[in-house]
Amino acid sequence: MTNSNHDEDFMKQALKEAYKALDADEVPIGAVVVMNDKIIARGHNQVETLNDSTAHAEIIALTSAFNFLGSKYLPEATLYVTIEPCTMCCGALYWSKIGKVVYGSADPKHGGLSLLNSSSKKILHPKTKIVKDILAEQCAFLIKDFFKKKR
Amino acid sequence: MTNSNHDEDFMKQALKEAYKALDADEVPIGAVVVMNDKIIARGHNQVETLNDSTAHAEIIALTSAFNFLGSKYLPEATLYVTIEPCTMCCGALYWSKIGKVVYGSADPKHGGLSLLNSSSKKILHPKTKIVKDILAEQCAFLIKDFFKKKR
Repeated sequence: MTNSNHDEDFMKQALKEAYKALDADEVPIGAVVVMNDKIIARGHNQVETLNDSTAHAEIIALTSAFNFLGSKYLPEATLYVTIEPCTMCCGALYWSKIGKVVYGSADPKHGGLSLLNSSSKKILHPKTKIVKDILAEQCAFLIKDFFKKKR
Repeated sequence: MTNSNHDEDFMKQALKEAYKALDADEVPIGAVVVMNDKIIARGHNQVETLNDSTAHAEIIALTSAFNFLGSKYLPEATLYVTIEPCTMCCGALYWSKIGKVVYGSADPKHGGLSLLNSSSKKILHPKTKIVKDILAEQCAFLIKDFFKKKR
């Protein structure tokens, strides 16, 4: 499991992924998967590029991590993602049995943990630790600025 | 949207997919995506084969449908799946804006609609119609028999 002192460093790497999404005119969300203090997988939102409404940063990073490790479970890994995962991504994280999820800014509209707060213990695996509000302002700024310019 | 009279016929095709999963010693769940009374995508559970705990029948069928249509939304399509979709798959169906979801047997343990009954309107897109209990016994039998033999 990743030491919490490194959370900001790895969130910066997730932000770097979010900027890749921004460059491609995608909703700017990024994610990295970390194990033993090393990044083993990266992902950024590619919904438009892949014409796939499920191609979220977390899903792409998880699939890449499964491939890298040759394992369908990630109990020793941590996912860093700039925005709170949606219901779908929380479900994917549940199945992955990931050790820890660290997210930047909350998403009151689509966030799986915010939406289903009363049953939040069900939406992630009971052994998965959750850390929030890491570089929250930087993570939220990217999204807000993106949608402001779209209007 | 598919005429409901055809629901059993298309569920049989989803069952055919579930048998493909069974042949590969995977949890036997299958799905098809139908548009204008034609199957445009198929999927069966491939969690073990792909070493990916998110490789559910629904996700594989949805991704295939996006690719086939070159569209990230499926408002005119129906997904048939032998077992009630889990939270992750309900989330994926939400993003796809799929027109209709037809499932065979309920899944009280992992089913997104069963688990989050009180907030079920949130877990699928508000325009998505839901039909359940189509060939429910056949669909449930496959799963029950699979796990019985595993014990």
